[in-house]
Formats: sequence, C-alpha cells, structure tokens
Amino acid sequence: MNFSSKLLETAVNEFAKLPGVGQKTALRLVLHLLNQPAADVEKFSLALTQLKREIRFCEICSNISDHQICEICAANKRDKSIVCIVEDTRDVMAIENTNQYNGVYHVLGGLISPMDGVGPSDLNIDSLVERVKAGGITEVILAISATMEGDTTIFYLYKKLKDSGVQISAIARGIAFGGELEYVDEVTLGRSIATRVPYGNSLIK
Amino acid sequence: MNFSSKLLETAVNEFAKLPGVGQKTALRLVLHLLNQPAADVEKFSLALTQLKREIRFCEICSNISDHQICEICAANKRDKSIVCIVEDTRDVMAIENTNQYNGVYHVLGGLISPMDGVGPSDLNIDSLVERVKAGGITEVILAISATMEGDTTIFYLYKKLKDSGVQISAIARGIAFGGELEYVDEVTLGRSIATRVPYGNSLIK
Repeated sequence: MNFSSKLLETAVNEFAKLPGVGQKTALRLVLHLLNQPAADVEKFSLALTQLKREIRFCEICSNISDHQICEICAANKRDKSIVCIVEDTRDVMAIENTNQYNGVYHVLGGLISPMDGVGPSDLNIDSLVERVKAGGITEVILAISATMEGDTTIFYLYKKLKDSGVQISAIARGIAFGGELEYVDEVTLGRSIATRVPYGNSLIK
Repeated sequence: MNFSSKLLETAVNEFAKLPGVGQKTALRLVLHLLNQPAADVEKFSLALTQLKREIRFCEICSNISDHQICEICAANKRDKSIVCIVEDTRDVMAIENTNQYNGVYHVLGGLISPMDGVGPSDLNIDSLVERVKAGGITEVILAISATMEGDTTIFYLYKKLKDSGVQISAIARGIAFGGELEYVDEVTLGRSIATRVPYGNSLIK
C-alpha cells in the first residue's frame, strides 16, 4: 500500500501483525481510532501496556490473574480436590460460564505441538505434577480439545499422572445437545454409538 | 463474559469498541498480544498514541500527512490544475495505486449523511470552495462512491461549484473490467447501456 504518512503506515503495520487482521482491515481500524477523541486512543493504548506490565499468572493454577492467587483458587467455596486441566484462560471462561463446575483449574498455557516447536517443558505440566504430588487432589479432569495436539497432550498427561493415585477423567464426547444426527461427522457418531451410556446417565441431575 | 482479571477485561473491552470486533475476537487478539514480548506490545501501543498525537492533515488537501503539506501537494511533477475530490485517505491510496492519475486531491473527510448527523459543515467543503475560488484549477473530478450519501454529497458539491467556471467531471461508471454481464445489477447495466461510449473511448490510451 501507498501510505501518505509514515505514522499511519507504522500504526497499520502494527495492527496487521494481529492474527486474522490484514492490511485493509488494519487501515480501517486505524482510521477509526484516528476519528476518536485523543483521550480514547490513550485509554486504548494504556489498557494494553498496563495489561502486559501488570498481569500475573496465578501461582497455583497459572490462570491469568490480577493477584498472586486467582479468584477461583482463593475462593473458599470451591472444591480444591478436583482439578480441571485446560489449554488456556478462554477454556476456563467457557467452563465457568456453564455454572456446572465447582472445582479448581490448572491452565497449561498451550498444547504439545512439535510442528510449532511447543514441547511439554514449554507448558505448565511440571507444576501440575507437583500439585498432584503435594496431595489433597482426588480427581483431575482432562478438558482439552479433541485435536491432534490435544490428544497428544492428553496422552502425555495421562502417562505422567496415571501412577499418582488420583482418578483421571476426561470430559464426555459425543453428539452436541441440539445437534442433528445426519450432520454429525462419522468419527463422532461412530464413537458415540460405541461409547453409549445407559439412558439417564448423560442427563444433568 | 466472566473474566479472571480486571486488566484483561479492560483490554478486551477496549478492543471490542473497534468496528467489526466482537468480544470473542477481542479476547483472541488480547491473548495474542499477551503472548508477545513486552517490547512488541509497547511498540504497538506507542504507534497508536504517536499517530494520534503527531498526525497532521495537509493544509491544502486535508489528506493525512506527517507534514504541513502532504507529499502529493508538495510534489513538483503533479498537475495542480486538476483536483480529485474523494471521501477519505483510503480513496487517495486506491487511486494512487492505479498509477493513472497525476493531479492532486481534496479529501472531504466523510460524506453528507443526515442519518448520522453529518452535514456539509462537518466536511472539508468550505476549504474546497475557497481553493477553487483562489484560481489555478481548471477541472475537479468527483470520485465519490455511488451510494445514497455519495450522491447527496456529489449533488451538493455540484451546486457549490457549478458557477465557479471550472470543469466538473465524475469518474466513469459502468460494468467493471472482467465483470460478466449476467451478474451485473440492473441499475448499473441499464445505465451503462444508456450512457454507452464510442468504442475505443473507454480504453486507456
């Protein structure tokens, strides 16, 4: 692109580094910000630098937090004996939104992906193993996406945890509620028949 | 959404104010930035505040510029007697990319849109009229989108400029090069037949 201003070009190029944002979208966003009051742009910019400077990761579960210990780990009413293992903070938010879980979490910070150069040592797996070893945990739930990286990570975690004496469970897989059978992929449908459950077990009590 | 951190929530809400960015996309972008080195986030944030603080608008054509007079208005080789009137800097960039235009521009900074509360006085129309009055201009080209707001603006500009003695032209409308007739909308096709030109006139010489 042929920019009339170096400042504009720099701002557009910075925006275009974001995932899923191309040059045209970046230009649209930058021109939008340029039309906003200066105070709003300062606020936007401050929110980002403050986030990066001041954000912490919970010392227990590694979730994004404003404090040393996150609100979930610090809450008295949460059941500390059940730990749900998730990829990142988005999964914590998704599970919290269901209001169906009262245990605590452990955020891995990613999935094992040799293609992207992410190995087990890049994730919060050692802290998980130590947390389980320290005792007080009766069950860990593997709530990890059923992708290639997810399955690799699940298998690795299973190997690491299987001798620790805690119960290892995984979130149920199958046909989504409201999903129509004819549109479900073969693997999911095949497995959900093979792993069928007595009627009533899959309902929320 | 149920954020584990106030800082995260603030940053996501700021991103979600951008046009076309919802809460989920905003969260994805913020988490991406959180994974980048601190220096990169500072650079991103600095690019925005610097843009807003230091950007200027060319005193002649109102285009975004780093200097008092933009590069196009300052260039000796540009023909100052032809002025192309456009909505915003994106249109300048689009026309510059064609390499077909050697005149200068006048950036309106928007279109007349009573629905959005944008009247003629909110746009750089007075400066255009003065520029034409000052002399030295033989032709103005209306290169404005053929939308309702665009047509209103074109009509208003035509009324303002028609007695100034300069030639007023508009960019050619018709079937796009490479466009297939059967997919063209009726209005465009109808008008392009009514306003047909002798073969050869529409080719670039």
